[in-house]
Amino acid sequence: MTYLAKVTVTYKESILDPKGEAINDALHRLGYSNVQSVEMGKYFELKVTGNGQPIEEQVDEMCDRLLANVNMETYQIKIVEVED
Amino acid sequence: MTYLAKVTVTYKESILDPKGEAINDALHRLGYSNVQSVEMGKYFELKVTGNGQPIEEQVDEMCDRLLANVNMETYQIKIVEVED
Repeated sequence: MTYLAKVTVTYKESILDPKGEAINDALHRLGYSNVQSVEMGKYFELKVTGNGQPIEEQVDEMCDRLLANVNMETYQIKIVEVED
Repeated sequence: MTYLAKVTVTYKESILDPKGEAINDALHRLGYSNVQSVEMGKYFELKVTGNGQPIEEQVDEMCDRLLANVNMETYQIKIVEVED
C-alpha cells in the first residue's frame, strides 16, 4: 500500500510572520480589502510505502526530526491512500 | 461570515524540485527508506470576510495574480467556514 502524506508547516502564533504580512498588504493593494490576514508556511507531499508501522506516527517523527523547526513552527499531517 | 482559505502551491510535474529531492535524500539517510519521493511547496492560509461574491473564485484570482507563478506552479484551494 502506498500513502500520500500532506504536511503543512506554519509558524506558531507567537512568532511574527513578515512574509504573510507583506502578502496581506499586497492583496489589499490589489483591491482584495476583505482579506483579514495571511499566514505563509511550507508544504510537503511525501509518497510513502506502507511497512506495517503506522504511517502517521512515522511522518510525525519525520516532522520532528527534519521537516519542522518545532521551536517556532507547528505542523499538520493528513494521510491519504493512493494507487501504487 | 468568515472563511479560511487553505492554499497549497507546488511545482508542475515537468519542473525539477531539487529541494524536495534533497529532503528525500536526507530522510533516507535518517533511515526512512520507505519514503519514495518528496515534493516541497508553499502553503498560504488566508482569513477572508464574505462579501457576497464566491470566495473560491476570489482566492483563485488571488493565486493567479499574486500567490502562484502559474508558468511553473499549480495550486489547490480548500475553503472552510470559521467563527468570526
